[in-house]
Amino acid sequence: MQSRNIKLTIQYDGTNYFGFQLQAGTNIATIQSKLELALSKVLKERIRVKGSGRTDGGVHAAGQVVNFFTNSSIPVEKIVLALNHKLPRDIVALEAEEVDEKFHAQYHVYGKKYVYSFYQGLTPSPFYRLYAHYVPYKLDFDKIRDACNILKGTHNFRAFSSSGSNVKTFERTIYSIELTNAGDLWQVSVIGNGFLYNMVRIIVGTLIDIGRGRLDISCIDEALKTGNRLLVGSKYPPQGLCLQEVYYSPINYKE
Amino acid sequence: MQSRNIKLTIQYDGTNYFGFQLQAGTNIATIQSKLELALSKVLKERIRVKGSGRTDGGVHAAGQVVNFFTNSSIPVEKIVLALNHKLPRDIVALEAEEVDEKFHAQYHVYGKKYVYSFYQGLTPSPFYRLYAHYVPYKLDFDKIRDACNILKGTHNFRAFSSSGSNVKTFERTIYSIELTNAGDLWQVSVIGNGFLYNMVRIIVGTLIDIGRGRLDISCIDEALKTGNRLLVGSKYPPQGLCLQEVYYSPINYKE
Repeated sequence: MQSRNIKLTIQYDGTNYFGFQLQAGTNIATIQSKLELALSKVLKERIRVKGSGRTDGGVHAAGQVVNFFTNSSIPVEKIVLALNHKLPRDIVALEAEEVDEKFHAQYHVYGKKYVYSFYQGLTPSPFYRLYAHYVPYKLDFDKIRDACNILKGTHNFRAFSSSGSNVKTFERTIYSIELTNAGDLWQVSVIGNGFLYNMVRIIVGTLIDIGRGRLDISCIDEALKTGNRLLVGSKYPPQGLCLQEVYYSPINYKE
Repeated sequence: MQSRNIKLTIQYDGTNYFGFQLQAGTNIATIQSKLELALSKVLKERIRVKGSGRTDGGVHAAGQVVNFFTNSSIPVEKIVLALNHKLPRDIVALEAEEVDEKFHAQYHVYGKKYVYSFYQGLTPSPFYRLYAHYVPYKLDFDKIRDACNILKGTHNFRAFSSSGSNVKTFERTIYSIELTNAGDLWQVSVIGNGFLYNMVRIIVGTLIDIGRGRLDISCIDEALKTGNRLLVGSKYPPQGLCLQEVYYSPINYKE
């Protein structure tokens, strides 16, 4: 039997996990560990997956992508069904397809979309608490939108990253960054060709600080120029962040 | 110091609790036990609350109401603030007001509004799972709306209740019952003068069975006439249910 390369799209509620990535040699609950366990049961062989990238503990995904090789001949639709019976209810398989043997979920990424959710109101909400960050301050949303426009494009985003990742360059391109809302629930949606460690959470922390008047909008230009992490806002908490989509073909983008 | 009667409105995510009501002599986590503990810390005296009614394990509330007596002179706004510092994050105090000493959160209820949420889709959602029930079947929503219209009004709802509660009469009035949606997320909203044990969850189980063609719409009339529990659908799971509002003044209602 020829080994098949399967591309699998999953969703997860990251609340109860220590992030996506397997912690080798430990029993720590991660998305990858649960997914590999379920896949191995379904396909009756040991499965290792490659993810499009990590997500931190508490971060969610609406469209995370992984790939894995299997010798099993089970049809892809059956894999999804069987997997959803084996997975815990906070991880869900959406779609599986057989792809070229060269396809790699991490190396072939053209870009990703992240959505950060926050909400306003007189009191925190017990229903939003796991999926959005509570921001009680009065915000100037026009100013936040102006700040988004400055971030768009190709820049050195070093100031908007946490140390701890080994990257060759801090240059990334943000194709689009938009602020939308449904009532008191607000979302910052960012599409980029790649993201530095904690980049979206630091961007959102900075946008909110600008919107509430704690930082001046000029800090963005300054931070993009100097790479100085101290010029921008704090890293916002993980529960507001969701990996929305991973793109495996070129993204149409006009500067 | 004169004892004050305080009416308090709270929200809670019922996922991690064994319902609203205190289980006397046990350490079982209930909304009431957490609320009384937090209130007693804030007011520095032992506080017992009266709720507008129970909610079952896993059931949520967006507007549950309780009242309690206190000798403390802390202003009501301060009670809300202090309480939200002491309460676990899945229980939130919204509003407190001093009311007449005769006010009783349970006995003075004119009516309640419950909302039951369910969602459709090819796969269950990790994000809805705690707050809505997954209904994968194709549904005839017009038929469900027709069924809602039959339930409206004053009827003997015995067939739509679980045994186990001591009630004098099974007659209740449903003032309104409506089906609405936002995309694949659907809600049945019911306002009534009172609800029998599990009544909303059995009504929704019946509506869905009618919508998917497993029960004929005529079963409702028959069940209202005979009180036969076996004629209607199963009790739907708790996580879809939310106590939305409790009314303490007469509800405007046209038959």
